Amino acid sequence: MRYELYYWTGIQGRGEFVRLALEDAGASYVDVAREEGDDAIVRYLDGVHEGALPFAPPFLKAGRLLIAQTANILQYLGPPLGLVPESESRRLYAHQLQLTIADLVAEVHDSHHPIASSLYYEDQRVEARRRAADLRETRLPKYLDYFEQVLERGGGEHALHGHSYVDLSLFQLISGLEYAYPRAMQRLAHKLPLLQALKQRVAGRPRLAAYLASPRRVPFNENGIFRHYPELDDPA
Amino acid sequence: MRYELYYWTGIQGRGEFVRLALEDAGASYVDVAREEGDDAIVRYLDGVHEGALPFAPPFLKAGRLLIAQTANILQYLGPPLGLVPESESRRLYAHQLQLTIADLVAEVHDSHHPIASSLYYEDQRVEARRRAADLRETRLPKYLDYFEQVLERGGGEHALHGHSYVDLSLFQLISGLEYAYPRAMQRLAHKLPLLQALKQRVAGRPRLAAYLASPRRVPFNENGIFRHYPELDDPA
Repeated sequence: MRYELYYWTGIQGRGEFVRLALEDAGASYVDVAREEGDDAIVRYLDGVHEGALPFAPPFLKAGRLLIAQTANILQYLGPPLGLVPESESRRLYAHQLQLTIADLVAEVHDSHHPIASSLYYEDQRVEARRRAADLRETRLPKYLDYFEQVLERGGGEHALHGHSYVDLSLFQLISGLEYAYPRAMQRLAHKLPLLQALKQRVAGRPRLAAYLASPRRVPFNENGIFRHYPELDDPA
Repeated sequence: MRYELYYWTGIQGRGEFVRLALEDAGASYVDVAREEGDDAIVRYLDGVHEGALPFAPPFLKAGRLLIAQTANILQYLGPPLGLVPESESRRLYAHQLQLTIADLVAEVHDSHHPIASSLYYEDQRVEARRRAADLRETRLPKYLDYFEQVLERGGGEHALHGHSYVDLSLFQLISGLEYAYPRAMQRLAHKLPLLQALKQRVAGRPRLAAYLASPRRVPFNENGIFRHYPELDDPA
């Protein structure tokens, strides 16, 4: 199967969670918009596909299937890519964890865009300061402590007693947070030894290490979800 | 199977999307916290269950399985409750749509809590006015127009060419929005004939009509996700 991934060019965004799974598994895929431009995405948003109508990218084409929503795509890819355990209970749990990661990702986005996605950051920076402070002081500790517990229950090294797409997504989450909120993440680091170790371990997986060093890995930047605005981080 | 639903008492919240599926299907279930109090939930958040660790309610116990995240629960319940079509492509699409509904529900929540869930509305009402205006003018039209198109492609009466949990969730979504933003929803109504008709049709399903008239249906209120603050709605 040659998969087609559709996601906006120029940012990692939510598409990166899917890309990491494809890259880690050595799957055959085309990153369509990077080859043909973002218009390739817009056609599908406008309804060119007869089945599922996507609301937004990322979406994946797998033969005649079109699958949208990041966590839905990963749930679909998990079994054929060998990125999720066999048992029903663990697959449900994997998906639950992915959805919880998605919730935090949305909160991170809103920390720099608390009023409207359609406005510039500069038009909501006062509100962003308040929201980012709550993210750093309340939400990040709550979510990250939760994921640390998840790893502890998973045997220490994995969310699910074995490699899965959830580990890849936790790698991406921690990497993004360290980029966007370096001071806050340094303050929290001593409480998150398992997440820190997981991040290093995932980065060292041969296919992922090759991907991360390649030009396919777009650097974090201030158009994506994880943005580094120093004034939103802990005071220096 | 006797299901156990765990969700905070006193509000409809995200638990209501699960409750509607259980009620519509005539499933056997216990609404645990309503019988035993919210402490019954907290025990699970503290990790009493050996398998999956929930981050937040709602979660469902089905025998030894514990399943958290609203859309994950509905995906799990769909087949045994007869609330999703058979084909893989439609099940993936059902879940995609449910996740998109969840995204909008989160945005509706943030329209009255744009800064922090942990603060009172009164402590963020200035920001809420700005965010709610964007919700009414940009986000609601975009999402609701999308769901209207989904119904059109589903044959007019259903999201998926047949009854499913997605129809139930669209009923809940429109009902909540009409409660919270009556003036904005009235302004948008003429563009949403299929959603309006779906809402009426779902409300008239015999088991649902009985449920909606029962004391088990907690009224919308200003502790839930859909809150009616007139100053956040369209100007009178």
